[in-house]
Amino acid sequence: MATQGQVITCKAAVAWEPNKPLVIEEVQVAPPQAGEVRVKILFSALCHTDAYTWSGKDPEGLFPCILGHEAAGIVESVGEGVTEVQPDDHVIPCYQAECRECKFCKSGKTNLCGKVRLATGVGVMLSDRKSRFSINGKPIYHFMGTSTFSQYTVVHDVSVAKIDPVAPLEKVCLLGCGVPTGLGAVWNTAKVEQGSIVAIFGLGTVGLAVAEGAKASGASRIIGIDIDSKKFDTAKNFGVTEFINPKDHEKPIQEVIVDLTDGGVDYSFECIGNVTVMRAALECCHKGWGTSVIVGVAASGQEISTRPFQLVTGRVWKGTAFGGFKSRSQVPWLVDKYLKKEIKVDEYITHNLTLPEINKAFDLMHEGTCLRVVLDMQV
Amino acid sequence: MATQGQVITCKAAVAWEPNKPLVIEEVQVAPPQAGEVRVKILFSALCHTDAYTWSGKDPEGLFPCILGHEAAGIVESVGEGVTEVQPDDHVIPCYQAECRECKFCKSGKTNLCGKVRLATGVGVMLSDRKSRFSINGKPIYHFMGTSTFSQYTVVHDVSVAKIDPVAPLEKVCLLGCGVPTGLGAVWNTAKVEQGSIVAIFGLGTVGLAVAEGAKASGASRIIGIDIDSKKFDTAKNFGVTEFINPKDHEKPIQEVIVDLTDGGVDYSFECIGNVTVMRAALECCHKGWGTSVIVGVAASGQEISTRPFQLVTGRVWKGTAFGGFKSRSQVPWLVDKYLKKEIKVDEYITHNLTLPEINKAFDLMHEGTCLRVVLDMQV
Repeated sequence: MATQGQVITCKAAVAWEPNKPLVIEEVQVAPPQAGEVRVKILFSALCHTDAYTWSGKDPEGLFPCILGHEAAGIVESVGEGVTEVQPDDHVIPCYQAECRECKFCKSGKTNLCGKVRLATGVGVMLSDRKSRFSINGKPIYHFMGTSTFSQYTVVHDVSVAKIDPVAPLEKVCLLGCGVPTGLGAVWNTAKVEQGSIVAIFGLGTVGLAVAEGAKASGASRIIGIDIDSKKFDTAKNFGVTEFINPKDHEKPIQEVIVDLTDGGVDYSFECIGNVTVMRAALECCHKGWGTSVIVGVAASGQEISTRPFQLVTGRVWKGTAFGGFKSRSQVPWLVDKYLKKEIKVDEYITHNLTLPEINKAFDLMHEGTCLRVVLDMQV
Repeated sequence: MATQGQVITCKAAVAWEPNKPLVIEEVQVAPPQAGEVRVKILFSALCHTDAYTWSGKDPEGLFPCILGHEAAGIVESVGEGVTEVQPDDHVIPCYQAECRECKFCKSGKTNLCGKVRLATGVGVMLSDRKSRFSINGKPIYHFMGTSTFSQYTVVHDVSVAKIDPVAPLEKVCLLGCGVPTGLGAVWNTAKVEQGSIVAIFGLGTVGLAVAEGAKASGASRIIGIDIDSKKFDTAKNFGVTEFINPKDHEKPIQEVIVDLTDGGVDYSFECIGNVTVMRAALECCHKGWGTSVIVGVAASGQEISTRPFQLVTGRVWKGTAFGGFKSRSQVPWLVDKYLKKEIKVDEYITHNLTLPEINKAFDLMHEGTCLRVVLDMQV
């Protein structure tokens, strides 16, 4: 290809500093080095983790950077030694890598690959600890190893999943983060069984994906909890059978749920990132076996707490990242499930905008009616 | 038998009020009512839960009461409808009941039977919400549904395990609490696999039983943590392979352990009841899969805390009560394992005293060299 081996100049939304509007800039994207893949990003969605880092509350956030981690695109070129993808492959960048070689990947117990984390955690590539993004020579940090708010990005080869090219990229970009996180929390982390009673705290995209996963697992009751009662109508379409608004109750929400369920739920999921809600999610679980999964990401420094008696009497407290899915192995499988209409994706997309409208997209995320905004990146 | 249907007057150690020496009294023990069993207690050991309630720190403690819950004896008589034990059967009272009929017993997920809890939690029997113990007509509360610091006690039929009569009661009395709690934490709650790295916080009877269980499960490294370095010699005999005294380190103990184990242990067990140690036990676990089990009982009102990131990155926080063993079904199995020399019991008994020496026995419990004190109850 004409661009292979060349620096590409393209548009990207740059976060110059915390909490200031992103700026659409012409950025230079260096060619991929050994073990790297340069991807033309066609569609990118927004997720709350982008907003969290952008806000400046993330102490590990580095600026200037290019945010974005839920996207889909086409491989433009590959660096030396890259064998699993090639130019023109359709791909989803994976913020959670999968190298299949490290202690974590080989354990069979977790999806938390450790290979590139030390580099991606500080906004650079592993081989030379440098960024592939720059503006007139000034480096711009990567974000989560993905940086999908750019028309072209460079990712490690362990951080990209090759998918069926018939899948519509403007839809399956969502399989880069939120939807798999919710489905996997149910299927991989909690392992919800048929007939279970499930409580879901927070009915955003991740919470709704939890509902969908729980319904697919045969849960008998799926209780949605949100402080915005308007969300219930949408939630019904994803499997939620009952709705509770904590604002309608004097009692702590965990007591309300325990009363409604003859002792508590079998599984609960916190999909907000609020440590007080995390405690409620644990404590609404049934004595003896109730399992609570933390899915939401709390702000830095915050802590969860409970009485140890809650655990000694049989409750289990867990968490999940990317729903426990092994990214390169299982994102393609999720795409196939979508193509077979076994999982929803389209239904989470409430807004379609373009890259230049990205600041408007962030504003939309805070509205209760918004689930996912998908940006057309090549406009 | 001559005593059947009669009130029995016998000796018992009565806790008249918190934190005052127990008093050996002549108590009247009423005959068992329907669904109850009167047991002649031959041997009773002391456990820290007895000491905790005795201290007055347990807000649910009721006085005057007869403590004790780790014992063995012989059935003296049974009430109406009792079919699974009969007079002269050798038994171990079980503070954790097993009715095989309640929601908990039928779940297949927990040993926390709920049938008699509402009564045993307030020191009475289920049928009439009264005590079977009295002194000159004044009722004395039961404790944990067992009250084994009496020469005769009355328990619910769901709270007594019939065991092989060849088993020496002066030894297997320990299978009423501490030893099963440790073994079961490993085998039932954590499910430690071959080759695992295990950390044990607190090397008392329960911690040593955890070590024994971990060794039986094929753990490759068993790290004992205690602030009393003298305990290591004994601990070696139970399977502990390495010893750490937190007092020898400047760094938080969880960091010391993470450094020693290339990222953390596979399983950790808190066997003290200290909420700060519970946090350390969780945080010394390996990212991705480390599981921490709370075995110790913390003082009322205390709370555990950690950053939710610890769970989101794959650690699991659990707890256990009576090691997850179904008491009536599995205590006899543990007795058989002891008779086949597959588990230790004798080795936990460091002192043998008599009922009248019970206050001395409580003093001994606080000495580092003491594991279990067994009282001969009929002296």
